[in-house]
Amino acid sequence: MSNDTKALEDLKRALRRLPGIGTKSAQRMAFHLLGRDRSVARDIAEALLRAVDRIGHCQQCNNFSETEICAICRSPRRDSGLLCVVESPADLVSLEQSGAFGGTYFVLMGRLSPLDGIGPEELGLPKLEALLDGGVVREVILATNATVEGEATAHYIGELARRRNLLATRIACGVPIGGEIEYIDRGTLARAFSGRREA
Amino acid sequence: MSNDTKALEDLKRALRRLPGIGTKSAQRMAFHLLGRDRSVARDIAEALLRAVDRIGHCQQCNNFSETEICAICRSPRRDSGLLCVVESPADLVSLEQSGAFGGTYFVLMGRLSPLDGIGPEELGLPKLEALLDGGVVREVILATNATVEGEATAHYIGELARRRNLLATRIACGVPIGGEIEYIDRGTLARAFSGRREA
Ligand SMILES: [Zn+2]
Ligand SMILES: [Zn+2]
Repeated sequence: MSNDTKALEDLKRALRRLPGIGTKSAQRMAFHLLGRDRSVARDIAEALLRAVDRIGHCQQCNNFSETEICAICRSPRRDSGLLCVVESPADLVSLEQSGAFGGTYFVLMGRLSPLDGIGPEELGLPKLEALLDGGVVREVILATNATVEGEATAHYIGELARRRNLLATRIACGVPIGGEIEYIDRGTLARAFSGRREA
Repeated sequence: MSNDTKALEDLKRALRRLPGIGTKSAQRMAFHLLGRDRSVARDIAEALLRAVDRIGHCQQCNNFSETEICAICRSPRRDSGLLCVVESPADLVSLEQSGAFGGTYFVLMGRLSPLDGIGPEELGLPKLEALLDGGVVREVILATNATVEGEATAHYIGELARRRNLLATRIACGVPIGGEIEYIDRGTLARAFSGRREA
């Protein structure tokens, strides 16, 4: 590429580093951002710089937070005896939006994945163990993904809880609301059967 | 939203202004950018600021350029007697990648759309007319999109060329390479028939 398109090529290359953005999308974004209203590009740049500068992790739950202890951990209305363990901040957002949970969280920022070098340390499990030792948590709700790695992670953390005589529960796995049996995969159906309850 | 997530909410809102990015994608991007490697976020921010700062429009063809006259317009190897008119810089990139064209371009940065207030002035047509009056251009190749507005724009610019006794041609419309007749829309088939040539 010639020199008079360097800034453009740099921009496309940078945008391609966003998750889910390929060559075509990066180009479309770049051309869009260079269009009539360039304030959008400046706004995004500034929001990015402010975010990486200000957002850290909550000292207690490990979720993204701009304060040392996040709003959920600080809230007197949350039951800190119930601790829900999730893989990611996105999972926490989904659970909060469901309105199904009024306790507190611990965010692993990942899942056990020995092949990728992600072990208990990388997931902040020593911090979680300290929390479990604090005498406040009664029940640990394992809300990791229903994947092989998510199940392994739930199993590992369940052991940590049981070793301290704390109740460890796993979120239910089964047919999603509105799901049609005909189109549900075998694994999910098997789990729905083994998890059946009196109607 | 509470104060300790302001920078995060601002980031998500800014990312949602990217084309094709909804609430979910913006959140996924934000969380990704706040992950272990925050240099990606800084790189994107810097590339954006550099791009809006340095990239203007070529004085001759109106394409994005960091120099007053872009590399294509400056190149002695391009035939400046052939002028290809396209709607957008993305169209120019596609044509360049096809390797089918060795002339020069004029980029409209849009298409005639009276209802949106986009007329000849907004598309830089006075600049195009001056170029056509320059005595260098022999043929104007109309490579606007095969849409209603693209056709209207091509028709309008074709008139400008013919009024100056310059040849105006329109790129062919028809069945795409690899296209199966069974699945081609009626309009395209009609155009493919009316545009048929001796085999
Ligand atoms: Zn917290
Ligand atoms: Zn140019």
